[in-house]
Amino acid sequence: LTGILYSLLLLEHNDLIIILALNPRVKTHANLHSTASKKNEKKHWKRNPERSCDSCVNLENNFDDIKHMTLSERGALREALRCLKCADAPCQKSCPTNLDIKSFITSISNKAILSNNPLGLTCGMVCPTSDLCVGGCNLYASEEGPMNIGGLQQFATEVFSKMGIPQIRNPELPPAHKMPESYDNITIFERQKYIGGLSTAEIPQFRLPYEVVQIEIDLMKDLGVKVVLEKGLGQNGMTLTSLKEKGFQVVFVGIVLPQANRDKIFEGLTIEQGFYTSKDFLPLFAKASMCNCRSQLPKLHGNVIVLGAGDTAFDCVTSALRCGARRVFVVFRKGFNNIRAVPEEMEVAKEEKCEFLPFLSAREIIKKDGRVEQIVHLKADFIISAFGSMLNDPEVKKALEPVKLNAWGTPEVNSETMQTSEPWVFAGGDIAGLANTTVESVNDGKQASWHIHKYIQSLHGNTVSTTPKLPLFHCAIDTVNISMEMCGIKFPNPFGLASTPPTTSTPMIRRAFEQGWGFALTKTFGLDKDLVTNVSPRIMRGTTSGHIFGPGQGSFLNIELISEKTAAYWCKSVAELKANFPQNIIIASIMCGYNQADWTELAKMAEESKADALELNLSFPHGMGERGMGLACGQDPELVRNICRWVRKATTIPFFANVTNIVDIARAAYGGGADGVTATNTVSGLALKADATPWPGIGRGARTTYGGVSGNAIRPIALCAVSAIAKALPGFPILATGGIDSAESGLQFLHAGASVLQVCSAVQNQDFTVIEDYSLGLKALLYLKSIEELHNWDGQSPPTIRHQKGKPVPCVEELVGKSLSSSRRKKKKKKTACKAGPSMHDVIARALKHIGVYQKLDNTEQVKALVDPEMCINYGKCFMTCNDSGYQAIKFDPETHLPVIMDSCTGCTLCLSVCPIIDCIKMVTRTTPYVPKRGLPVNPVC
Amino acid sequence: LTGILYSLLLLEHNDLIIILALNPRVKTHANLHSTASKKNEKKHWKRNPERSCDSCVNLENNFDDIKHMTLSERGALREALRCLKCADAPCQKSCPTNLDIKSFITSISNKAILSNNPLGLTCGMVCPTSDLCVGGCNLYASEEGPMNIGGLQQFATEVFSKMGIPQIRNPELPPAHKMPESYDNITIFERQKYIGGLSTAEIPQFRLPYEVVQIEIDLMKDLGVKVVLEKGLGQNGMTLTSLKEKGFQVVFVGIVLPQANRDKIFEGLTIEQGFYTSKDFLPLFAKASMCNCRSQLPKLHGNVIVLGAGDTAFDCVTSALRCGARRVFVVFRKGFNNIRAVPEEMEVAKEEKCEFLPFLSAREIIKKDGRVEQIVHLKADFIISAFGSMLNDPEVKKALEPVKLNAWGTPEVNSETMQTSEPWVFAGGDIAGLANTTVESVNDGKQASWHIHKYIQSLHGNTVSTTPKLPLFHCAIDTVNISMEMCGIKFPNPFGLASTPPTTSTPMIRRAFEQGWGFALTKTFGLDKDLVTNVSPRIMRGTTSGHIFGPGQGSFLNIELISEKTAAYWCKSVAELKANFPQNIIIASIMCGYNQADWTELAKMAEESKADALELNLSFPHGMGERGMGLACGQDPELVRNICRWVRKATTIPFFANVTNIVDIARAAYGGGADGVTATNTVSGLALKADATPWPGIGRGARTTYGGVSGNAIRPIALCAVSAIAKALPGFPILATGGIDSAESGLQFLHAGASVLQVCSAVQNQDFTVIEDYSLGLKALLYLKSIEELHNWDGQSPPTIRHQKGKPVPCVEELVGKSLSSSRRKKKKKKTACKAGPSMHDVIARALKHIGVYQKLDNTEQVKALVDPEMCINYGKCFMTCNDSGYQAIKFDPETHLPVIMDSCTGCTLCLSVCPIIDCIKMVTRTTPYVPKRGLPVNPVC
Repeated sequence: LTGILYSLLLLEHNDLIIILALNPRVKTHANLHSTASKKNEKKHWKRNPERSCDSCVNLENNFDDIKHMTLSERGALREALRCLKCADAPCQKSCPTNLDIKSFITSISNKAILSNNPLGLTCGMVCPTSDLCVGGCNLYASEEGPMNIGGLQQFATEVFSKMGIPQIRNPELPPAHKMPESYDNITIFERQKYIGGLSTAEIPQFRLPYEVVQIEIDLMKDLGVKVVLEKGLGQNGMTLTSLKEKGFQVVFVGIVLPQANRDKIFEGLTIEQGFYTSKDFLPLFAKASMCNCRSQLPKLHGNVIVLGAGDTAFDCVTSALRCGARRVFVVFRKGFNNIRAVPEEMEVAKEEKCEFLPFLSAREIIKKDGRVEQIVHLKADFIISAFGSMLNDPEVKKALEPVKLNAWGTPEVNSETMQTSEPWVFAGGDIAGLANTTVESVNDGKQASWHIHKYIQSLHGNTVSTTPKLPLFHCAIDTVNISMEMCGIKFPNPFGLASTPPTTSTPMIRRAFEQGWGFALTKTFGLDKDLVTNVSPRIMRGTTSGHIFGPGQGSFLNIELISEKTAAYWCKSVAELKANFPQNIIIASIMCGYNQADWTELAKMAEESKADALELNLSFPHGMGERGMGLACGQDPELVRNICRWVRKATTIPFFANVTNIVDIARAAYGGGADGVTATNTVSGLALKADATPWPGIGRGARTTYGGVSGNAIRPIALCAVSAIAKALPGFPILATGGIDSAESGLQFLHAGASVLQVCSAVQNQDFTVIEDYSLGLKALLYLKSIEELHNWDGQSPPTIRHQKGKPVPCVEELVGKSLSSSRRKKKKKKTACKAGPSMHDVIARALKHIGVYQKLDNTEQVKALVDPEMCINYGKCFMTCNDSGYQAIKFDPETHLPVIMDSCTGCTLCLSVCPIIDCIKMVTRTTPYVPKRGLPVNPVC
Repeated sequence: LTGILYSLLLLEHNDLIIILALNPRVKTHANLHSTASKKNEKKHWKRNPERSCDSCVNLENNFDDIKHMTLSERGALREALRCLKCADAPCQKSCPTNLDIKSFITSISNKAILSNNPLGLTCGMVCPTSDLCVGGCNLYASEEGPMNIGGLQQFATEVFSKMGIPQIRNPELPPAHKMPESYDNITIFERQKYIGGLSTAEIPQFRLPYEVVQIEIDLMKDLGVKVVLEKGLGQNGMTLTSLKEKGFQVVFVGIVLPQANRDKIFEGLTIEQGFYTSKDFLPLFAKASMCNCRSQLPKLHGNVIVLGAGDTAFDCVTSALRCGARRVFVVFRKGFNNIRAVPEEMEVAKEEKCEFLPFLSAREIIKKDGRVEQIVHLKADFIISAFGSMLNDPEVKKALEPVKLNAWGTPEVNSETMQTSEPWVFAGGDIAGLANTTVESVNDGKQASWHIHKYIQSLHGNTVSTTPKLPLFHCAIDTVNISMEMCGIKFPNPFGLASTPPTTSTPMIRRAFEQGWGFALTKTFGLDKDLVTNVSPRIMRGTTSGHIFGPGQGSFLNIELISEKTAAYWCKSVAELKANFPQNIIIASIMCGYNQADWTELAKMAEESKADALELNLSFPHGMGERGMGLACGQDPELVRNICRWVRKATTIPFFANVTNIVDIARAAYGGGADGVTATNTVSGLALKADATPWPGIGRGARTTYGGVSGNAIRPIALCAVSAIAKALPGFPILATGGIDSAESGLQFLHAGASVLQVCSAVQNQDFTVIEDYSLGLKALLYLKSIEELHNWDGQSPPTIRHQKGKPVPCVEELVGKSLSSSRRKKKKKKTACKAGPSMHDVIARALKHIGVYQKLDNTEQVKALVDPEMCINYGKCFMTCNDSGYQAIKFDPETHLPVIMDSCTGCTLCLSVCPIIDCIKMVTRTTPYVPKRGLPVNPVC
């Protein structure tokens, strides 16, 4: 028997040698490979393109996204984490529409974007961000560089559009038909057969797909805006005057400049002769690609010259390559330092191997000895001139009468109000001459909208606010109700501030309520005889962020005590706050030693201040225990029960005991008459520096004491505590705390059995405005749960699409999936009024049924790993972790560098846990029975 | 009184309004700003340069570092964290010297770099990485893009050079004077007055400072290489033959090609006439900047034409700007797609506003109608031609005799051995024609060195290994002894594998020992009647990494059980392992229910297998408790004491109880006769997904049980446990576990009182080779502690220099500080032989004296924050966190966006904890007494 076992082991060993061939080893000698052999070898690994290639990739008919900034979900989440959320954010200040960029970056996003910029998705794709928001980003001062704001904006609005949720009017306004007459209807007249203007007619599909423009048009139509196609200014008698006669009170002119600037040298040349202007070429290109009748693309071949070096010129370059041009030359009059185009656009043209020819135009010739004189001859099959555009269509000019035109032949416009010489005519975009970009055109419209509103109201004798008040973006998600009732107390939303540094003083709680927090605990206070004075330093970053400094610290460690302020201050404060914020809930957090008189006195004081409830702080981990308070009382069920009894006797308002994760203590609080518990507190910890001193270290002696760890590092511990108490005492209210830093993590605690949620570390990481993200995020999570078609979403995250940079990016349609077609959008519109997702009470404790003892887990229902080779980036982490921390069940191909999961996979899931690519590895149900490897059979002779 | 208080409060309130002006607010309306006003406003925020500027920055005499990839410590640490540590790493495969890049990136670094590339610092600065290591990086497939490998290499070697530690010969070899005759001396003959070749003579100082080359020369001299200056081949009769006659057995020719290629058109032109070749210009430039006699820089002005577009051409461009050129034109024959220079170099020239003129040379002229014909005239004051170089000095050619020359007039060289037609003459670098870059030249030398060694040994009748064995880099750090003795057991180093997935099987432990791990615990095993079968999934990534997937997970949560293998397997395995690895320590981890017979049987079995010691697993948190094992036994001191007594009675080898953080349990183990404890185990936790199911969830019912959290998230908790036991039971051995993921975190546990260190999560995150980093890192930390001059270093981290991207980077001298001059280096050399840092026993428990109760902390020794405005990146995090989580003690200037700390700062340290810039905020001793704000005085009428 032993002989057979040995051969089996040996066999296993040989297999292992093959599997482990590529597994890393500590080196004992330096390597030796000749320079000549290395020059060849590196080619097998090269991921970036060879620079000097004459045979370029054929781009004909290739309509893949070419924007560098486009982000997958993984990339977007990673990028968003870098945002610093600057106090006075330069990105917002540098955006023509004043978009609140730092807010959208980590929030549900669409609201912040679309409130300030109704073309948020388009602008996410076409904005010259390096010149706007990105150009001001404070992260420019760091090695990692500025944020990819455009990519994040595109990602956020794309995900929102996939949700298919229609825009609604401000729900606080009366219904449309009950609005006064002065709030009239809006009609858009469009000359083309399709709407979208320059975005659809001239910007190539690989930069801005038509579907994207359509989404924004649909959102606009959701509000009741009417669109009339194939009616243009100057066509069939439509003029400003004719419109006024038809009863339109105001006209906004937003037409594009219709004609191309044309150099005299090209007079008389035709498309047939191989000459296009950008105004000829781009619309032909756009129309053919939009309708998928790509056979109608302009047919080019050989060498193409593009004249000019503006953004339009580079759109011509990339489009020409897709029409069959073999090589494109960009010929321009000045040098590289005077190119008008944004670097984003030029970069793409450069990568697609277009050639640049600067300084090509007649220039002053200075004669002198030794000068270089050379002649450039360009053989070209086509010429596209991109010298900008203008208005010289006499029909249009006539239709604009009696509006006064300026020297350039376009309407004179007030740059503040966008009003023309006729008070009832406004203009913006291309025709108004102020905007150079889409986003600036959007802002022209936004600016005009306020002044049109003002003008129309004045016609009806109404005055409007002097400070502009444009409505925010609203959708059905806003209507979800996330208020909570617990112990007879009504919480406007489940998010509140824990008794922590964010509630150091009254003005702070006041500001928190103003931002939207539902409730707040006071910082814990005691009787005057127990007043404390803090040491410093006392709050430090935790260990979880490693060498990443800055935003989103995963944990903190603190040795801060309870409030330094008197009980009198807090009682007065609670009374004031309740008077000013009657809808918000204030819980007074109190602490005494184990003494009935003290607890009675303090509880009564707090109740008299009109606090909605009390929290008895029985879990404070550091410092107070030495005085017989906090955790010193909170670890003994008997003491907890008695304290609760004393307080119950002294007061009538609800009170909650703040306990650590011991179910016994919660039971004692319950037995003592507490109305609920807060779980949990920080976890005891210590941090040391490399020189053996602690951090924080106090004074010259660098002394410390054990502190409390907070933040998302302790979330699993806190979730464990909350769910254990919820299972032991069903229905007993729990106020959860411990690593709540998002709507989703808040929802996890509700699922685990909590009723309301206390936050501290996340505010320390940012500021009080996170509440907007949490409230809106929770509403969105509840709303999305109610949409059948989105059952395969993970919260707000759509199913991951197969994606790898350098590989083709699927078009929006593929991203969205057919189930989210426009028909669903329409259905949804009808639904929003009646059904707005599950209520808060439906989610509480929903996870408990899944949690139990280990013996209840079924070890016959096993899984194994499955790798998606399309998404794999070939780095072999799954292979290495399986080798050195598991089961040697993954083969790694030395040629393709793709992992192959073998049947010996035990489903441990470590490979998935360490893979850098979301959803590249999935765990799937095992179809063959799992047989553990026992090594040697049971009970042999050893 | 109340009246006065009110006014005080009001005053405070008004101050607050001013302070809070810029604090973020949730928006209630969309913003409105006209396009015209926004165009101006954005200029105040712009951090990136305006693109179209004619008035460029004056670069004359500006010798600041211009490399984009240069990293500060902060940037380097952040960047290093991104490295995936690929299994079959493309970076290494793409490096001419086969540098083990993934190893150096997170390790002490210099060893891995300098072992394969003795010019590691130079190459970090000048390598065309985009074409080499970076070009193959697997992160190309991700949005965040490939690693900045050059920057990391530069950073790592710069820090090492600042340590001033000399290179030593392999310490395992006999001393130099006892080496056989065949190991001879090496002499370098250098034609110039200074050594360095092309690196010093032609590469500009702002890309490669001379000090850097000097450091590498010093390291070479440390090994005894002699250098003779001002002696060149062909000068004063020095020829290959004359050298042979003087007794040199082998000559390696590594001279640069001395003459410039010169177009016929420029024949007869002189420097006085304004014509330079790159071979004239760059050495003049280098010499003048090297000796700080910048007045001797070539004097240029007006327009300068550089001919050619190779790397040398761009060095000419950037250097010309520093010599006074107003504008530089790069004129080249082909298009942009055929530029030879690496993008890194071209990019810098572009940013410095040089202009490009492609296709300027006579080309075929095709006549056809409609062709564009333009004439370019360039007015230039100087011309620098950069058309490459060659060998046509007759003296040198003659000196190379009898070596056979090829068609290009350079020596014929075997590309594998670097041998010329004369077996005793080798060549490499420029003259050999195989290398295009510095790094390839280095590799030529490395390749030649092995074959020279082989040749010389053959002359002495010795044979050498057929597989090349080049020595690794060695320095005094390697000689530090980190072995440990504990309970009479000698550990080769303090790092071992915990009883966890990395010790699932014998072959894994075997491989771990081969990589250098000092000890290993077996996975915990029990008696056959207690055999377990795992469920799957069971190991998941923790919550601490948020949306960052991939390398360096801060925590894991698992529900894996003890070993699935039999006790018989493990006993047999331990015996085999001890036989094969007698120096390594094996601790058998065992577990039974509370039953003397079982513990006795199992302990005896394990002892008989020759395990060095036992660990009694009394702290296993999930699954086993339900069977009356693990934590079920480990929470009651009485049970622990009895189990220890039983095992003590049954065995004679040392044994350790694995306990959680309760000192009582450690005392019980001590009382029961245990020889030490392992502290601590994982911490109980739970994780949920957004849909309320747990993760991991088992089977169709998605059931789970509470799991164990591991990784650096629990390090503060584990440090707390270890130090508490060490304080309670001084000298009682502790095996620490809980988030040890680096040499430094290991040292923290030693400082806290541990003797040896157990690792798991860090191996799960990478592989067994981390041990090399940990061992070498710990040696370095101990070594650095012994160097007086480095007292202000934080471990391996030098004091942070003031640095912000876009601002000038200080030169190496400033970085190093005068204390680290070459004189110190020389002193250090003498020291290394006798003194090698403190021993391991000096560091154990060193931190304990700082830890105590809160009441011992001095609240009169307070600190306050101090901001360095030079380093501040103006984002205002300190301000916001102070507002919403603290004390409103920071003013934020709306113009400069610099924070100002007010005297009301309470020193809480939150601002420092969230600041993204290392050392931008410091806590300094408070000079005025700290007076807590009590809000209302003690005991008023409330």
